[in-house]
Amino acid sequence: MKEVQQSKPSVKIIPLGGLEQIGMNITAFEYEDSIIVVDCGLAFPEDDMLGIDLVIPDITYLKEHADKVKGFLITHGHEDHIGALPYILKELPVPLYATKLTMGIIDNKLTEHGIENLVRKKVVDFGQHINLGQFRVEFIRTNHSIADAAAFAIYSPAGVIVHTGDFKVDYTPVYGDSIDLQRFAEIGKKGVLALMCDSTNAERPGFTPSERTVGETFDKIFSEHTNTRLIIATFASNVDRVQQIINSAYKYGRKVGVEGRSMVGIIETAQNLGYLKIPDNTLVETEQLRNYPAEKTVIITTGSQGESMAALSRMAGGTHRKISIRPGDTVIFSSHPIPGNEKAVSKVMNELYAMGADIIFQDTHVSGHACQEEIKLIYSLVQPKYAVPVHGEVRHLMAQARLAESLGINRKNIFVIQSGDVLELSEDKAGVTGKVPVGNIFVDGLGVGDVGNIVLRDRQHLAEDGIFIVVVAMDSANGYIVSGPDVVSRGFVYVRESDELLDEAREISAQVMNRCVERGIEDWNRMKNAMKDELSDFFWKKTKRRPMILPIIMEVS
Amino acid sequence: MKEVQQSKPSVKIIPLGGLEQIGMNITAFEYEDSIIVVDCGLAFPEDDMLGIDLVIPDITYLKEHADKVKGFLITHGHEDHIGALPYILKELPVPLYATKLTMGIIDNKLTEHGIENLVRKKVVDFGQHINLGQFRVEFIRTNHSIADAAAFAIYSPAGVIVHTGDFKVDYTPVYGDSIDLQRFAEIGKKGVLALMCDSTNAERPGFTPSERTVGETFDKIFSEHTNTRLIIATFASNVDRVQQIINSAYKYGRKVGVEGRSMVGIIETAQNLGYLKIPDNTLVETEQLRNYPAEKTVIITTGSQGESMAALSRMAGGTHRKISIRPGDTVIFSSHPIPGNEKAVSKVMNELYAMGADIIFQDTHVSGHACQEEIKLIYSLVQPKYAVPVHGEVRHLMAQARLAESLGINRKNIFVIQSGDVLELSEDKAGVTGKVPVGNIFVDGLGVGDVGNIVLRDRQHLAEDGIFIVVVAMDSANGYIVSGPDVVSRGFVYVRESDELLDEAREISAQVMNRCVERGIEDWNRMKNAMKDELSDFFWKKTKRRPMILPIIMEVS
Repeated sequence: MKEVQQSKPSVKIIPLGGLEQIGMNITAFEYEDSIIVVDCGLAFPEDDMLGIDLVIPDITYLKEHADKVKGFLITHGHEDHIGALPYILKELPVPLYATKLTMGIIDNKLTEHGIENLVRKKVVDFGQHINLGQFRVEFIRTNHSIADAAAFAIYSPAGVIVHTGDFKVDYTPVYGDSIDLQRFAEIGKKGVLALMCDSTNAERPGFTPSERTVGETFDKIFSEHTNTRLIIATFASNVDRVQQIINSAYKYGRKVGVEGRSMVGIIETAQNLGYLKIPDNTLVETEQLRNYPAEKTVIITTGSQGESMAALSRMAGGTHRKISIRPGDTVIFSSHPIPGNEKAVSKVMNELYAMGADIIFQDTHVSGHACQEEIKLIYSLVQPKYAVPVHGEVRHLMAQARLAESLGINRKNIFVIQSGDVLELSEDKAGVTGKVPVGNIFVDGLGVGDVGNIVLRDRQHLAEDGIFIVVVAMDSANGYIVSGPDVVSRGFVYVRESDELLDEAREISAQVMNRCVERGIEDWNRMKNAMKDELSDFFWKKTKRRPMILPIIMEVS
Repeated sequence: MKEVQQSKPSVKIIPLGGLEQIGMNITAFEYEDSIIVVDCGLAFPEDDMLGIDLVIPDITYLKEHADKVKGFLITHGHEDHIGALPYILKELPVPLYATKLTMGIIDNKLTEHGIENLVRKKVVDFGQHINLGQFRVEFIRTNHSIADAAAFAIYSPAGVIVHTGDFKVDYTPVYGDSIDLQRFAEIGKKGVLALMCDSTNAERPGFTPSERTVGETFDKIFSEHTNTRLIIATFASNVDRVQQIINSAYKYGRKVGVEGRSMVGIIETAQNLGYLKIPDNTLVETEQLRNYPAEKTVIITTGSQGESMAALSRMAGGTHRKISIRPGDTVIFSSHPIPGNEKAVSKVMNELYAMGADIIFQDTHVSGHACQEEIKLIYSLVQPKYAVPVHGEVRHLMAQARLAESLGINRKNIFVIQSGDVLELSEDKAGVTGKVPVGNIFVDGLGVGDVGNIVLRDRQHLAEDGIFIVVVAMDSANGYIVSGPDVVSRGFVYVRESDELLDEAREISAQVMNRCVERGIEDWNRMKNAMKDELSDFFWKKTKRRPMILPIIMEVS
């Protein structure tokens, strides 16, 4: 009997964001009539996205297959993994699965948006398996710069996919246990189809140090600065960092104040859920700090990235309601500037120095992401057939691809893919077999998606050279000008000193109108275009600027 | 006989820029009726200076004392030291003094602006002294990332001030001799009133490596990459870097093409003046490179900072007219990203990776500025009475101040001053005794100084939420509306999908107008303000955005 060649079953991996960028992580996994989605993050706007508050992913593909979507599985509670949920869940109300702290942070967010009861939420323990259609997902403990971070083993009829989430290997974490390397090994031993591994630090050699090393540095700093107030800026979500500051403060007899709305919120959540242990009488209201000698206090604050509205920036700018920087204060940046924030951080530092503060920079921070040796370790435990680097710009994904190749994975089994690619994997073949729509949806104020490329291009044009408006009232009966042209400009030239230029522009507008009328041109759009062309040339010649030119013709009968 | 207590003569140091920032270096020195000015640089616009091309210093003080100003002395040919000359010389046409290459670069710049013969220009040799009124200035050789950099010893009746310019200590420079440490020592031995020393790298411990080490790295890279084309991006003005690339190319039998207007210009100038030695038949037109095997070519290009219009960015974006990136190309960034440029550089790298290029990043660069050990060396040679750290943000100036203090300079003799401060120094006393006007003058297209804070604030407002314009024509006789209100918006909402919102806004505008007419309000400004207030509230409520609102009332008779 001849054996029939049967193709092995295949599973689809469809990243809807998070590749080509650090931020907006969201990846769909599809097998027949089941889709599960890992993470649902936001991105912060790029410099050219003027006026935009947040960027969220385009989930057209998920909405088109809404009946298949079984739920969102969230790796950890950072904005680039959970931040789009309040917007996306409104469009796709499916169940949520996450570990306890992650769900606590998500809950706060959904409550703020008034949708805390919109979807079913299930808190998952490490080691627990969740059945979702044709998929089964196991939560595996990892370490990261926030507690309760999870990796996923995604079991499908086509094989197992391991998704690390954001992770590092911390043998001595501050809260909870070390990453479950044994479980990675066990799953790897049984055979893994694909590994999707965090690429953020794939360009960095070596090992990321343990979060606990930061605590040792804090102890040293506290012991050496017994005569000054300490102000420590860090990420609101880094509960372990906050824990270590509190530990040092308690040890050295300092009272702790907390500033920054997000910091206060996360500390409350973490404390309620048992992720943060604060000795009695250690935390006090900032207003109460003045009842203690400065050198017996420490302030934990947001703003370590130089964010202009954050508490530390307001202190540095002298506009914080409760805290004034004093000569002799020691400000500690317990963070590294995220690429793009260097100048903002520098600005805050300069202001603090000018106020007489001392600054300790970068000594008290470790990354939350795996460096090269840790990435190699995970590959060696999991030993996947296919490597799919995730979480990073192209340079980071490529760096991980090179690492994977150096570990013996065949180059043709390594997939550096793009958001929107449909990567289809089975035991016997693999490749990108399709494309789904992806993109940036802009959130601006209450508007989600109503600011698109046209509005953005207009904002860029307005930002560059301002606007020049010319208004004319015409008699609809005979086409005569009955008023105007009047001209108004904003953001173009300083009006009070540009009388001549604006008068000339008004004169040109009138000439164009009259010429059109003489030639019997009645189409207002043609008139407007003629005005735009002439004024544009005129301004370019006179100023080498190209303001937006907006002719408005009013009809008077 | 009783001795009469006579106060010692004093000299004034008046920085008009360059402190609180890296860029826009310009410092006046004043003694009685003599003023000399060191450097005349520009700054590149900050992110919030929308549409601005360049920033130049406010020289109100110099213009008010134009009769005293003897000339500009230029330390070296970088934009932040020479870039404002074409604008400032038009207002203050005084003689220029600089070394040969520096003057060559300035000449190109003045020629571009059509003012090459506006002022007298004197090329000065190292060791030469220039008499300028009550001052005498000696040019001292230093090392920097451009050849022919000079420090100045400024002799005045009040004492000697040593200004290092931008410098490093390079014992094995590529072109010319090492920094003239002996002369610094000799002048120091005779007694120096004040040292004004480069602070750029004052936060960095150790010693900046010699430029020559980069050449060794190039040799290594050339020897290891014999099968690929090399594309090397660096600063146009770093002639020594270009020399070393050419040396390696010649050694390994590669033809060299040059891309980027500024690069081509500086190479020509440097070659003409003898600062660059190019073996025959090494440099070829880029178009000719295709006549050679890829692995026998190297392209030197601008764009190492990710500048969006530079040659490398155009190659990476696939829009360069002559050069297409091919898989296997090796692109070398012979530079470090300047703070603020990290994301732009990353973008170019991602594009290059996506095109299949390999990238070598940061291995082939050394700084042009002195690190802490070099700063200490200069202090130890010069042994000034007063320390006045220059060239840096507050954090850098403070870092140098700490170094100076660690070397035994009395804290009260160290002056971290601000642009505009008048620092008066004499053997027996020192302090800030006044303030002169300083500021940013914006260059936008042909306009110098016509874009001020009002225009900039309007651009920022327009960039954030766009503009909403409402136009009404009124009968001047009776105050009735004869046309409109018509509404137009740009950069606010997507008009095609916001009919309802805009209709409602039109309706509100009409109501406000009618209410004003009913109440007998004839003052148009009051009408406009009422419209602004109501529309602003309405839009905020509906969209949480605050577009600029511009009511225009036309009078029809």
